[in-house]
Amino acid sequence: MNIKVIAFDADDTLWVNEPYFLEAENKFCALLEDYLPHHTISQELFKTQMDNLPLYGYGVKNFTLCMVETALRISDNTLNVSILEKIIKNGKEMLQKPIELLDGVEETLQALSEKYRLVVATKGDLLDQERKLKKSGIEHYFHHIEIMSEKKTPDYEKLIKHLDIKPEEFLMIGNSIKSDVLPVLEIGGYGVHVPYHTTWAYEKVDHNIDSPNFRKVDSIKEILPFLLG
Amino acid sequence: MNIKVIAFDADDTLWVNEPYFLEAENKFCALLEDYLPHHTISQELFKTQMDNLPLYGYGVKNFTLCMVETALRISDNTLNVSILEKIIKNGKEMLQKPIELLDGVEETLQALSEKYRLVVATKGDLLDQERKLKKSGIEHYFHHIEIMSEKKTPDYEKLIKHLDIKPEEFLMIGNSIKSDVLPVLEIGGYGVHVPYHTTWAYEKVDHNIDSPNFRKVDSIKEILPFLLG
Repeated sequence: MNIKVIAFDADDTLWVNEPYFLEAENKFCALLEDYLPHHTISQELFKTQMDNLPLYGYGVKNFTLCMVETALRISDNTLNVSILEKIIKNGKEMLQKPIELLDGVEETLQALSEKYRLVVATKGDLLDQERKLKKSGIEHYFHHIEIMSEKKTPDYEKLIKHLDIKPEEFLMIGNSIKSDVLPVLEIGGYGVHVPYHTTWAYEKVDHNIDSPNFRKVDSIKEILPFLLG
Repeated sequence: MNIKVIAFDADDTLWVNEPYFLEAENKFCALLEDYLPHHTISQELFKTQMDNLPLYGYGVKNFTLCMVETALRISDNTLNVSILEKIIKNGKEMLQKPIELLDGVEETLQALSEKYRLVVATKGDLLDQERKLKKSGIEHYFHHIEIMSEKKTPDYEKLIKHLDIKPEEFLMIGNSIKSDVLPVLEIGGYGVHVPYHTTWAYEKVDHNIDSPNFRKVDSIKEILPFLLG
């Protein structure tokens, strides 16, 4: 094993993210509870997100627009517009959340940064991911920040070319099997899965991975013996 | 002069952009004409954009959210919600506009690509700018695409470091004095201004530039003698 670059997913790998989306979704369902039960509203919101994904991509602005569109649709345009004002306000609050690092992140970065080039490889909104990184206090550990519109095989190939390394010199760590592990294994890199207690439905996959390049750990710290041993 | 990298702004430098925003703004004002005269609605929309810029950044999703917020505010929440549906729809249409290259762009890129490394340095939404570049048919001329959340001095310093060149080896071409020229001159690079017939109010500056590193041309083609001569 001759790994040169270790890439970290950001949301729910380095810091808390999905719980803020779930919180916003719960508020959204509560605002519309006169129209439909919570779980149906959640399904409608997810449907809107999937329909708009090719056009809007990921991130909070997309999420806010999807909430507005879903609210208009499920109310059949009879909505009290003050509800929309609250949706916009809730979206803005998401963009101002504090950054809460996950357990063990800083010590892991510190230890690995002595031996490897560390990078961030994350989806989401450009400005918002930059904001979170600045607020996180861990930006200085990273040689490069790659904010990607997608995390599929060609996107990783591009990143690896950009980093001027070979796929077998690249290891990706993240909470999503679908976005952080499978495409990296496919091109010959290494993938480490650190599950987070909650995962966005879109990122869920049912997949048994049988690869010598794959490892699953319960906490990000557990990769240290493997990479520094 | 020992220029190695030529960077191009994208919107209204390589292809038509601002007219699509103006068209969307006109539609928006027409939707709300029962509440306020056009020019007042435009002012209110601009105010919302300025207020939200630090949080939302640039691009169509930001613009759509600002239209929704402005509509709610100027109607004092008495809005017919079908108007909001139209705003969302108009925003989505903006994300699906064809790419119309400006006059002389392709021949300029072709000629310059034989002697220089060409890059794109653009603000805006990550996914949307990638989409436009893919649709443009000119992506293959560029060694690197940099989509930036801001275009200020530190952002150009970072880009130049990333490109592994000195500021005096960097030339930026764009339609915005404020975003494409002034910050580049400030760090010791070269700036070329190619005015477009319409400029977003935010990008307008009143500035006399007296620098040997600055040049203004009427059409992008006019830089060829200067750079290939």
